[in-house]
Amino acid sequence: MSPAFADRMTNIHKSFIREILKVTVNPEVISFAGGLPNPGSFPVEELQEATRKVLESDGSNALQYSTTEGYLPLREYIAARYLKRKGLSINPDDILITTGSQQGLDLLGKVFINQDDDIVIERPGYLGAIQALAVFEPRFHAVQLLDDGIDLDRLAKTLKESNPKLFYAVPNFQNPSGITYDSANRETAAGILRNHDTIFIEDDPYGELRFMGHDMPSMKTYLGDNAVLLGSFSKIVAPGMRLGWVCAKPEIMDKLIVAKQAADLHTNYFSQRVVHQYLVDNDLDSHIQKIRALYKGQRDCMVAAIERYFPEEITSTKPEGGMFLWATLPEGVSSLELFDLAARENVAFVPGDPFYVNEKGTNTMRLNYTNSNETAIEEGIRRLANVIKRFMAGRRNG
Amino acid sequence: MSPAFADRMTNIHKSFIREILKVTVNPEVISFAGGLPNPGSFPVEELQEATRKVLESDGSNALQYSTTEGYLPLREYIAARYLKRKGLSINPDDILITTGSQQGLDLLGKVFINQDDDIVIERPGYLGAIQALAVFEPRFHAVQLLDDGIDLDRLAKTLKESNPKLFYAVPNFQNPSGITYDSANRETAAGILRNHDTIFIEDDPYGELRFMGHDMPSMKTYLGDNAVLLGSFSKIVAPGMRLGWVCAKPEIMDKLIVAKQAADLHTNYFSQRVVHQYLVDNDLDSHIQKIRALYKGQRDCMVAAIERYFPEEITSTKPEGGMFLWATLPEGVSSLELFDLAARENVAFVPGDPFYVNEKGTNTMRLNYTNSNETAIEEGIRRLANVIKRFMAGRRNG
Repeated sequence: MSPAFADRMTNIHKSFIREILKVTVNPEVISFAGGLPNPGSFPVEELQEATRKVLESDGSNALQYSTTEGYLPLREYIAARYLKRKGLSINPDDILITTGSQQGLDLLGKVFINQDDDIVIERPGYLGAIQALAVFEPRFHAVQLLDDGIDLDRLAKTLKESNPKLFYAVPNFQNPSGITYDSANRETAAGILRNHDTIFIEDDPYGELRFMGHDMPSMKTYLGDNAVLLGSFSKIVAPGMRLGWVCAKPEIMDKLIVAKQAADLHTNYFSQRVVHQYLVDNDLDSHIQKIRALYKGQRDCMVAAIERYFPEEITSTKPEGGMFLWATLPEGVSSLELFDLAARENVAFVPGDPFYVNEKGTNTMRLNYTNSNETAIEEGIRRLANVIKRFMAGRRNG
Repeated sequence: MSPAFADRMTNIHKSFIREILKVTVNPEVISFAGGLPNPGSFPVEELQEATRKVLESDGSNALQYSTTEGYLPLREYIAARYLKRKGLSINPDDILITTGSQQGLDLLGKVFINQDDDIVIERPGYLGAIQALAVFEPRFHAVQLLDDGIDLDRLAKTLKESNPKLFYAVPNFQNPSGITYDSANRETAAGILRNHDTIFIEDDPYGELRFMGHDMPSMKTYLGDNAVLLGSFSKIVAPGMRLGWVCAKPEIMDKLIVAKQAADLHTNYFSQRVVHQYLVDNDLDSHIQKIRALYKGQRDCMVAAIERYFPEEITSTKPEGGMFLWATLPEGVSSLELFDLAARENVAFVPGDPFYVNEKGTNTMRLNYTNSNETAIEEGIRRLANVIKRFMAGRRNG
């Protein structure tokens, strides 16, 4: 007999992106589909030295079970960095180290969401958040992103109509769109949020990867305890370490710690110690400066290639940081159909569909520039442009 | 305003053991309360060498994002070990690497349990499993453990009456009791289970730590695909690495992978690579032989001290492996009350209460012997015996 699974698993399927990435195994394929940092940026030697130090000086402790909250000096480092970068004064006890910031989403879903609770996400929204939160069966309300941030009218309307428990957003260089909320948008959005009990979840995996323009304030600056912050070392040190964090007020943190303990006792302690040692012994800012320079070159190359090759009808974002840009085809053109044609021409991207809740055949696509060199970016965009032109001509003629 | 948490968090509180462990921070306290492996057994130098190799030969890959399923060569190693140790033929694709086996429990709860679903656990049961599964709000049915395994009559009755979805058990050197199911008990329990659709979850963190008697067959030998296996490197390599696994048939594995991806994308890849390198370069069996010899000495010392000092009315288990033994006070004597007195005499244990579902004032306690040296064990048991004697005399006189 077939086992009886929980109802919550009925509508959750294997990631579409996982399936898509199978196409990209072929080395002939130029892939803009993944979401990987450039491995050339990983501080391999420095992490090796940090590991040696930790194991030589305190090996038995570093390999033992540890506390659910995470290694205190690492939490202190994170708190100090919030103060320095964002002017946020955060108590290290309000920080929980998680298995990547993805786990923060799972824990927040567990702690907050009852079936059919209303929650707000961005449209398009981060796929990993949709997956993590969908497990707890909320009602998603997707509010459109515009060039300068969230659609404020729709946000106000949605908050008023559904009084959602959570609003999950990626205000810096959003995944998938590359859009950043500008300061006016942040301020107005915060003003709207202040009239509601909605908890704002600010996910910021890319915030440090700004290569032009100016840093924006955290939404916590305006919202205080009603903002929960998610952060990650994946894009500024290395994702294989699976180190992220949640920052929340004590009342929420108490629940998160209980949920974290039930989920996996605590985050990998060996990695916490190694990354902390790395951070103590190295200048993270100058390391990040190198990543920024690398990604800026790749981003500029992709933006220029799009301008050169893509038909005029196609619009795309011009991110000031992060790892992705977002292209929009003419109304009614399905990027999913385009994907199959593109795959035959050995170029891959992520069609927009998985970034929407319950929308199919969308006309958008995500393009990653951090994991291809400039030659590949130029050639890949040229191939993709040709596929798009043929596809659109076929539609006009067919 | 106070945030509105999900209903599932209402009945889940911070671990009682966490609170208890605060007592043991005092260096004067001899603690049998924790559940820590002996850090002297961690292969620190070998792991350092493994780390060096991995980072030198393949650093950029080892630090990158990886697959949800886990590092294939590590899953192949686990499969080969199941064949060698247990005669079980397992496809590496039926193994998922998790953040400790604790995460396996969270994922299984997510995938299987609807609110008010019936599930069976042991009485006493593993606290971490009660915590992880309680998040999904099942109805727990606790079936008594006897000296030779599960109470078969009660198991048959419970399965018949409630047709539970899951039966979670630790058949080898159970936590907290130290009890092992003997072969007759396994065979009969399996015969009972075969008449039901119940999925049997065999958690086996201590199975390799047998220091006397003979290895028992896995319940999967009898139950095939209706058994799900949980395993861990925490007790045979090092817990700080947070590496465990779930082994389940493809139909269940598909759901577990979806849930795992939503929970944290994948398990720490750096640690997977380091531990795999360690396993390839070293003889795990001879390493485990050293741990067994160490723990056998500690176990023998505690068993002997109990025989020497404890009053006769107190019974205790004599585990053939693992990390814990379990003592039972006379009926009506609360081990929680005893705990406070013991703490004043600088000796700590875990009172039985958290190992039961909805029972308070129980007369049992868990004693860990792996994390104290033999001098401390002798002295700690002597102190504890004196507290018990005074406590029981006080009850008789009061």
